[in-house]
Amino acid sequence: MLNKPRLLTPGPTPLPEQVRLVMAQDMIHHRKADFKRIMEETQQRLRHLFGTVQPVLPLSCSGTGVMTAAVTNLFVPGEKVIVVDGGKFGERWAKIASGSGLTVVTLSVEWGHAVTPEQLQAALAEHPDTRGVLVQNSETSTGVLHPVRALASVTRALDVLLVVDGISSVGISPCPMDEWGVDCLLTGSQKGLMLPPGLGLIALSERAWKRAETITPPCFYFNLAGERENVRKNQTLFTSPVSLILGLNESLRMFMETGLETVYRKQWALTMLARTGIRRMGLDLLAPDHFTWGLTSVRLPDGVDGARLLEVAAERFGVFMAGGQDHLKGRAIRIGHMGWVDWADLAAGLHAVAESFRVCGGYIGARDYLEQGLQAYHEALDTGYGAL
Amino acid sequence: MLNKPRLLTPGPTPLPEQVRLVMAQDMIHHRKADFKRIMEETQQRLRHLFGTVQPVLPLSCSGTGVMTAAVTNLFVPGEKVIVVDGGKFGERWAKIASGSGLTVVTLSVEWGHAVTPEQLQAALAEHPDTRGVLVQNSETSTGVLHPVRALASVTRALDVLLVVDGISSVGISPCPMDEWGVDCLLTGSQKGLMLPPGLGLIALSERAWKRAETITPPCFYFNLAGERENVRKNQTLFTSPVSLILGLNESLRMFMETGLETVYRKQWALTMLARTGIRRMGLDLLAPDHFTWGLTSVRLPDGVDGARLLEVAAERFGVFMAGGQDHLKGRAIRIGHMGWVDWADLAAGLHAVAESFRVCGGYIGARDYLEQGLQAYHEALDTGYGAL
Repeated sequence: MLNKPRLLTPGPTPLPEQVRLVMAQDMIHHRKADFKRIMEETQQRLRHLFGTVQPVLPLSCSGTGVMTAAVTNLFVPGEKVIVVDGGKFGERWAKIASGSGLTVVTLSVEWGHAVTPEQLQAALAEHPDTRGVLVQNSETSTGVLHPVRALASVTRALDVLLVVDGISSVGISPCPMDEWGVDCLLTGSQKGLMLPPGLGLIALSERAWKRAETITPPCFYFNLAGERENVRKNQTLFTSPVSLILGLNESLRMFMETGLETVYRKQWALTMLARTGIRRMGLDLLAPDHFTWGLTSVRLPDGVDGARLLEVAAERFGVFMAGGQDHLKGRAIRIGHMGWVDWADLAAGLHAVAESFRVCGGYIGARDYLEQGLQAYHEALDTGYGAL
Repeated sequence: MLNKPRLLTPGPTPLPEQVRLVMAQDMIHHRKADFKRIMEETQQRLRHLFGTVQPVLPLSCSGTGVMTAAVTNLFVPGEKVIVVDGGKFGERWAKIASGSGLTVVTLSVEWGHAVTPEQLQAALAEHPDTRGVLVQNSETSTGVLHPVRALASVTRALDVLLVVDGISSVGISPCPMDEWGVDCLLTGSQKGLMLPPGLGLIALSERAWKRAETITPPCFYFNLAGERENVRKNQTLFTSPVSLILGLNESLRMFMETGLETVYRKQWALTMLARTGIRRMGLDLLAPDHFTWGLTSVRLPDGVDGARLLEVAAERFGVFMAGGQDHLKGRAIRIGHMGWVDWADLAAGLHAVAESFRVCGGYIGARDYLEQGLQAYHEALDTGYGAL
């Protein structure tokens, strides 16, 4: 009872009480009128969120499931795709694509850095038979935001589908797919959408649908054309994850009530809070230039053990964050500030980082990191978010 | 406020309040100690429920997802399987298997009837190169219980894997897989387990694991060997459906507290209640001999429209049931009595059936169907359940 637990991981995120209460209601049947009405309402809200006139399909699976669905419904074995690999989830694209029999060209980017449209253009020139580009909008393992808008301006002029993993960006930073020319945008429920894990969402552009219509999906469970047919009847192809969809409708209602622009401004401002505070402490940011609006990755100085720091933050301060992955294990921490997290939660997180850092033998630069961070937050809220 | 809504569909089923409240708690992280402790506890309870020493793997998907996982992890394209097809879900096995490139031999059974071990033996004699048999324990579309124990006594003597869809049987009627020699048992969360849809569970026998270890699963998302490796660390391969697993732990706690035998006796007794009441009304049961313990299917006389009957039951009495599927559309109704349903709910359901039947122009035989049904319930509870 000393500390309230605060979940500042880059998903799953804390859940609003009203979403949890909606999901706690007794079961309703997924083939009956009440559920269909909710599906219909949710569909309108999802299209607004995704920035598309196309249906947004709900799938009962984790984020990796919906990534698998995208790859297997848009490409056939032997086709070539370029995978932007700048972290753990870029790697996952490559594993899914090669596991599905595609020819994978890896466009490697240093962890912490974003791919450039020029790099993509060069790779496409070298591989003119490329059928698609698989990229993260936000690479959750590093906190990098890849420039999807600029990448789309390259692919939309070609017969190349741009497939974007928006798992830690949808509902966090804008990615209006029709306006930008994104061919496939997908996400999971447990990040920006303030829901438990277990629901995937995916939308295809018109030209991506044309491609999908020519393909018989190899995995019976992931059939986007079949899902589309059902969504038109406010249904899903197989048993709907009813509770998650009820929760989704409520969380989207909150989004619409607040306004998408305000949500994005908040996310940008939180990012300014985190980055300013961390810099003021004298710590290094893992993603110097192109950064996600939902998490902040911090590189630790030698001699400070990240695993221990996370333990101290959890045990002494009740703050739960994530560590670095692969070669950054123990060398970095990731502070999540997506979903149902506000400035005060994040300020508590920064204080826990600073104090735990000292316990682990680190030395904090300036003591006014909270004041400076919160100042940056308020200024950002007033001035609007950065360019995309 | 005139009627309380009563969900008597064969899944999703009503949810106990304590399960809903557990699921309504704020999010915890799936890679942290608290969640691992719950996974460990759940695993012990699941093994008891499945009657196996093998791990029971939780997957984030619907029932069809876990059926897909079974087929793609146990067989490779070109291999021959026998599918017992006696309803909508037998058909689904066939679609998944042929969609995965297997050679499918269909063992057709009339809707409403169970396959016999002799029929299976004859099919296996005709197709000695068969690698597996895919069957439902309970065929949800008709309410038939296939004799899994007898089928397993055929397959266990051969190099043939018996793969059992226990979606509407696990937690409803016994299917102790190790004792019977079942090679794969799977289920979904929204039936006997008193949870929302979205969680699949699957266990393999030792010899099925030997087979699975030789196969590279074609769909990246469904990798049972990878899941097993993670379950040993009280984790899942991809992001865990956290809320559903918290709920599962609570619903399994209720099972253990009540005792599995008592749960099965209750389910059997409810089935006696439904069947006695329906017969007493003068209506025909769709499954005359081998019947599921979680739902009762009723064939309607000509001139009574099933869709209209369901509407009347919902609107006037607040009772939600399911209709017949395919050629039984409008010609049958299905009364669910699995999961969090008790004798009083089911009695209310029978009364709604009788009254709605009269509204739709039907004629009820005896007026004492409730009394007789409840009598049968109490007698069954006292005498134990039928042979399997």
